[in-house]
Amino acid sequence: MIKKIEHIGVAVKNLNEAEKFYSESLSIDILDREVHGDMKVSFLCIGETSIELLEGLAPDSVIAKFIEKRGEGIHHIAFEVDDIDRALETLKKQGVSLIDQKPRSGAHNSRVAFLNPKAAHGILLELVEPAKK
Amino acid sequence: MIKKIEHIGVAVKNLNEAEKFYSESLSIDILDREVHGDMKVSFLCIGETSIELLEGLAPDSVIAKFIEKRGEGIHHIAFEVDDIDRALETLKKQGVSLIDQKPRSGAHNSRVAFLNPKAAHGILLELVEPAKK
Repeated sequence: MIKKIEHIGVAVKNLNEAEKFYSESLSIDILDREVHGDMKVSFLCIGETSIELLEGLAPDSVIAKFIEKRGEGIHHIAFEVDDIDRALETLKKQGVSLIDQKPRSGAHNSRVAFLNPKAAHGILLELVEPAKK
Repeated sequence: MIKKIEHIGVAVKNLNEAEKFYSESLSIDILDREVHGDMKVSFLCIGETSIELLEGLAPDSVIAKFIEKRGEGIHHIAFEVDDIDRALETLKKQGVSLIDQKPRSGAHNSRVAFLNPKAAHGILLELVEPAKK
């Protein structure tokens, strides 16, 4: 079902400062930048996966509220799947608690769905079906 | 400097229950199990990387104390490097705050060192130089 880790989402207060650490201190390439919903996102390439640095654009954004509660750090991990509808059906049959019963729109025209962190031992897991090329 | 994400370390209360979620619900293969220091570790294979499920073996273990403070969840992310001595020298020259000034012994005969989470925007980052084959 899971092909690879598609990305790791990291909540940061200041995207420019975080970009500087990853690109200058660790020499990790910045692939792309995008505004998605109430977030600014930077995509950093590491092997077959990427890190998404996430900065909230408003005090009531999901990311700003996460940082207020827990501080900066890892917000979620995304697993790539071939067929997100089939993956969600499989998880539902097993009684795994889901945040999204159906896929919704993600970055780069992907389809995404989140699992309940309680199901995944404290980790917010996202499933991602990339856009067909 | 960074070749890939070597693993993601996840602090869990009960290794058997966490293994069951990842292997049965998400069909992720269990590669190996190991006792390392005051931890029981399970290695799960995802693409070119892996998830390390970590259970503390004593109430005063690093993992048990992490869970007591923050709950279950991601404990650290490990980046693979070719030459950990050179990587640490580079980071020191840039003034990046390190937990380990010199590499120490990690799982599977690797050499590892941790950066200060304050340097990495709230993430505990580990550098890993795998054992030479």
